Amino acid sequence: VRIDALDNRARILAAARSAFAADGSRASLNKIAQRAGVGPGTLYRHFPSLQALLVALVADNVTALCAEGQSLLTSGDPAGALREWLWSFARHATAMHGLVAAELAAASADSALADAHSAIRATAESLLTRAGHSDVDAGDLLTLVNAVAWACEQSADPGRLDQLLALATAFTSTSP
Amino acid sequence: VRIDALDNRARILAAARSAFAADGSRASLNKIAQRAGVGPGTLYRHFPSLQALLVALVADNVTALCAEGQSLLTSGDPAGALREWLWSFARHATAMHGLVAAELAAASADSALADAHSAIRATAESLLTRAGHSDVDAGDLLTLVNAVAWACEQSADPGRLDQLLALATAFTSTSP
Repeated sequence: VRIDALDNRARILAAARSAFAADGSRASLNKIAQRAGVGPGTLYRHFPSLQALLVALVADNVTALCAEGQSLLTSGDPAGALREWLWSFARHATAMHGLVAAELAAASADSALADAHSAIRATAESLLTRAGHSDVDAGDLLTLVNAVAWACEQSADPGRLDQLLALATAFTSTSP
Repeated sequence: VRIDALDNRARILAAARSAFAADGSRASLNKIAQRAGVGPGTLYRHFPSLQALLVALVADNVTALCAEGQSLLTSGDPAGALREWLWSFARHATAMHGLVAAELAAASADSALADAHSAIRATAESLLTRAGHSDVDAGDLLTLVNAVAWACEQSADPGRLDQLLALATAFTSTSP
């Protein structure tokens, strides 16, 4: 998809995604507007604050993660499907950097976020159940994977993510 | 041990331990001196900075953790011994709060800390080997447990520590 073929809202979201990936918490609304090729007024009309933009981004990511989870539910290797999805979730957590945690904590009353949280948890529960691990609390598992993503960001060694996730999700390779 | 029966250095360390547990990063050298019943000069003579005090505290904790690990090496239940020690390590990480991470990052060149780090890693390696998990990287495991401790502090729900650690260390209950 060419970025200039998208409508303004989608262009802003795509620009924001790149800006956060490149600049983390130093990304600014002005830079994002420039990158998207829209004026500050257009950006403001769609997203009146950095927080509103983040909420929309997270909701977008969550929709993609849930769709991926849905399609993984038909996989012939349920344990592998669970792991693959947890890896995607970890990459999502990493891509959003620490910025999201701080900004989104303030937005936690936002109903779009509450819906995203429920959807991601339900997806994790379905994958856990299909892999025979319905005894594992989905909220605990997501918190654990999130903590691993955080630890890897702190250590500034992205290569560790694989090793640490493998250790944290070792239960998935035991028979239920 | 009565706190007033200890020598000044030990009294300051005991007071600092309580102060950090109670106040986290808001603990101050002045408050610690008051709590230990020593003057600021005495405290300063032993520990010229908050960082020096933290390094000494961590070194003390690490000595205790390594001694505990040593005695657990003779346990009849090596997997249980490994778990028990990882729980102790997580409590150590939690007790030090986020303060330590920030302050100690600055002190990372301190040789006492480097020694502590090596000692704790060697202890973890011995327990892993005895439990039949020498394939698990001790550094990864300690980072994982540390991340879990951090996540539990963020969630302000200390009860989660048990659940999350059980999930993170599930590999210990599989036969090697």
